[in-house]
Amino acid sequence: MPYYIGDVIKDEKSLVARTPEKFRETGVDVLLENGVEAIDRAQKTVRLADGSAVPYDILVLGTGTEAFVPRVPGVGMEGVFVLKTLPDAIAMKSYLREKQCRKAVIVGAGFIGLEMCEALRNLDIETEVIDLSIRPATRWDPEFSKVMHDEMTRHAVRFSPNTGLTSIEEGNYRRLRLNTTRGEVEADMILLAIGVKPNVQLAADAGLQIGKSGAIQVDFSQRTSDEDVYAVGDCCEVYHRVSRKWTHIPLGDVANKQGRVAGVNIGGGAAIFPGVVGAQSFKLFDLGAAATGIDEAEAKRSGYHPVSTIIWGNAIAHSLPGEKRLGIKLVADRATGMLLGAQAAGVKGAVERINTLSCALWAGMRLEDIAVLDFAYAPPFSTAWDPIHIAARDLMKKI
Amino acid sequence: MPYYIGDVIKDEKSLVARTPEKFRETGVDVLLENGVEAIDRAQKTVRLADGSAVPYDILVLGTGTEAFVPRVPGVGMEGVFVLKTLPDAIAMKSYLREKQCRKAVIVGAGFIGLEMCEALRNLDIETEVIDLSIRPATRWDPEFSKVMHDEMTRHAVRFSPNTGLTSIEEGNYRRLRLNTTRGEVEADMILLAIGVKPNVQLAADAGLQIGKSGAIQVDFSQRTSDEDVYAVGDCCEVYHRVSRKWTHIPLGDVANKQGRVAGVNIGGGAAIFPGVVGAQSFKLFDLGAAATGIDEAEAKRSGYHPVSTIIWGNAIAHSLPGEKRLGIKLVADRATGMLLGAQAAGVKGAVERINTLSCALWAGMRLEDIAVLDFAYAPPFSTAWDPIHIAARDLMKKI
Repeated sequence: MPYYIGDVIKDEKSLVARTPEKFRETGVDVLLENGVEAIDRAQKTVRLADGSAVPYDILVLGTGTEAFVPRVPGVGMEGVFVLKTLPDAIAMKSYLREKQCRKAVIVGAGFIGLEMCEALRNLDIETEVIDLSIRPATRWDPEFSKVMHDEMTRHAVRFSPNTGLTSIEEGNYRRLRLNTTRGEVEADMILLAIGVKPNVQLAADAGLQIGKSGAIQVDFSQRTSDEDVYAVGDCCEVYHRVSRKWTHIPLGDVANKQGRVAGVNIGGGAAIFPGVVGAQSFKLFDLGAAATGIDEAEAKRSGYHPVSTIIWGNAIAHSLPGEKRLGIKLVADRATGMLLGAQAAGVKGAVERINTLSCALWAGMRLEDIAVLDFAYAPPFSTAWDPIHIAARDLMKKI
Repeated sequence: MPYYIGDVIKDEKSLVARTPEKFRETGVDVLLENGVEAIDRAQKTVRLADGSAVPYDILVLGTGTEAFVPRVPGVGMEGVFVLKTLPDAIAMKSYLREKQCRKAVIVGAGFIGLEMCEALRNLDIETEVIDLSIRPATRWDPEFSKVMHDEMTRHAVRFSPNTGLTSIEEGNYRRLRLNTTRGEVEADMILLAIGVKPNVQLAADAGLQIGKSGAIQVDFSQRTSDEDVYAVGDCCEVYHRVSRKWTHIPLGDVANKQGRVAGVNIGGGAAIFPGVVGAQSFKLFDLGAAATGIDEAEAKRSGYHPVSTIIWGNAIAHSLPGEKRLGIKLVADRATGMLLGAQAAGVKGAVERINTLSCALWAGMRLEDIAVLDFAYAPPFSTAWDPIHIAARDLMKKI
C-alpha cells in the first residue's frame, strides 16, 4: 500500500478538500503529524518521528521549500509572518483582523511581496515595501520595474529601495518597529517575503546528490541519484531549456507536471519531464507582469551573445477605450537570432504574450519567424502588427 | 517616381489620415478616382479610366476583395448594405440614424455578420441573423457554435438557421421585406454579410496566373507569374503552413505582412512571406472566439489522419470571481501527434490560447510537447494545468 507521509492540510492547497479518509479510499495510507526523521536507503525504510519505520520500494520526496527568514533580532515576534503555507496565510489573515492592523510592512519586493500589496490594500491597510535592491521585481528590466513602482504609488503603496532590515522590536505607536539600514518604520504586521530555499536536509542526510542550485538533483524522469528515490516539486531541480542548465525554479505548475511524470514512471510507464523555459507571472493591482526565458546576464553566463530591445505598443486596437499600453522586452542571441527571453508588463495582454513567447522559446524559434507569426488578429484582442511582431522586428535590426 | 493608383480613403483605413499631399512629400504620386482599366505587360504600362497610360518598372496589385452580393431581386434597394469599405460603414451608420431604424436583418452568420450584431444591439436596434447553415460560425465546432448562439440569444439577437434569402421588396410595416426559404421577415435595414471574393479581373485580363483558390497566384516573395508584377493582400493567395496549400485567407494582418515583404523585395532587399497557420478571431458581445490551423475535414483533404477533442476548463483560477469557462478544441494527426488545428471560445482567454497554439502550429509541435508547455502561471491568468495542457493530454489518450 502506498503511504503519504506529511501534513495534507499544511502543504498542499489542492489537497485541502481531501481528507485522509478520502485518500485511504483510493488505497493510499496517510500518516499525518509524524514527520520523516531519516531515510535508510540500504534498508529501504524511512524512520518517523515516533521512532517507527515505514518500508518502501519506491520513495518520492516532495519536501518543498521553506521561506527564508533573515537572521536579525525580532523575527520570531508575534505579528511577523512568512507566506509559504496555507496555515501561514490563515494565521496572517486572522492576525490582521483580530489586531485591527492599520499598517503593514513587506520585506522583499519579489513577486510574492508585490502580490501581497494588493491583498493588503484591499483590506485598506497602509502598506510599505522595503527591499535591499534599488527597485522592485529585479527579474524584470528597470523599465518595467518603474511601471510596477508607478502602479504601487498609484495604489498608495510606498516602496523603500536600498533598505535592509536590521532588527524588529516592539513599536511605540504601532505594534512593531522595523529598524533598517535607512531608519525606522513602525507597523502592526510584518511580512518577510525575501525568497525560499529548498528543503533538502532529509535528502542530503541520506547521501542523495544535491545539485549546484542547492536543490535535489534529479534526471528527466524525476529520479534522484538513487534510482528508487524520486523527487518532485519545489525541493528539486528542473532543466531549463534555454540556459540548458539544471536550476531551481519553485513554481506550482512545474511541481504539478513533475509529480505526474514521477507517477507515470513509478506506475510502470515511461515519461520524461522535458523542462521549463522559466515562464512566470504576477498581478500587481491592475498590472500584469510576466517573464520567460533568460535575461542578458544569464544569457552571457550560459554562453550566448545576447542582444535586447524594449518596445511599447498597444495590447488592443488604438481606437478602443481603456488602458492598453503594453511593453515587451525581447532578448535574443546575436549569433543565431534565436529568442532567449522575453518580459512584458501592461494592464492588458502581458501574460498572454509571454505565454506565446514561451511556446516560441520551447520550440527554439528565431526572431525572423517570431516577427511574422500568425496571430488571431481582431481589434478587441490585438493590433494588426502585434507588439510581439514590432519587438521582434526591432531586435532584428540590432543583429 | 512611384505611383499610388486608387482611392486612398475608400479602401485603406490606415491611410485615411494621410492625404495625397502627404504621400507626395514622401515621393509617391497619388492618382485618385481614376481606376486602372488594363495592364499592358508587354509595354509595362497601366491604362487608366481617362485613357492615359502610366509606365511601370514594377507593378504591385492590391485590388483586395469585394463583398459577395447574392443574385436575388431587390439587393440594390435603399437600405440594403454590404460592409467592405469605410464608406460602406459610414453610409450604413448614416442610414441607421437618419431613417431611425428599429430592426435590422443580417444575412450571413460568419464572423463579420456576428461582429455586427454587437454594433447594432449597442444602438438598441432589434437584430436578426439568417443563414443557410444550421448554425452560426461554421468554421467552429458545433459545440462552440452553440455557445455563440446562446450568447446571441442572451443579447436578444434572433438566429434563423437553414434560411436562404430569395428576394427583397418594400415592406408593409418596416421599410423592407426579406422573402426567405422559410417565410418573410421585415426590417428597416439589411446587411449582406455572406463573404468576399478576390478582385482578380484586372490580373486575369492581363494573363497573370490565378490560383485554384480563385485569388491571384503569388510566390513566397509576393511575385505573381510575371516577375515584375507583385500582388499583396486580400486579392492574392497565401501559403498555409499546416495544409501546405496555397489558399485565400483575406485578413488585415496577413495583408500587412505581405505588403512589407513585397516592399522589401521591390526595394532591392530579399524577404519571403513564410505563410500563415490560419489564425482568426472575433468578439461576439462578451464572448471571444478564435481558431487556427485546420479542422478535421480540411485535415483529411490535406492528407492527414485527424483526431480531435474538445475540453472545457477555466481560463483563470476557479476560486476567482467572474465567468471563466473556456472551451478548447484540438485537432492533431494520429500518425505523428502533430498539432493540426485549434479552436477556442470563452469570455476570457480564448484568443490568447489560440495565439499560443498558433505559435505551436508554426513550429510544427506535437501534442507531447504541448501537454507540458511552460506557461507563466498565476491564478489571475490561468490554472496550474492550463486548458491547453488538459486538451493536449486528453487528445494524446486518443492516439
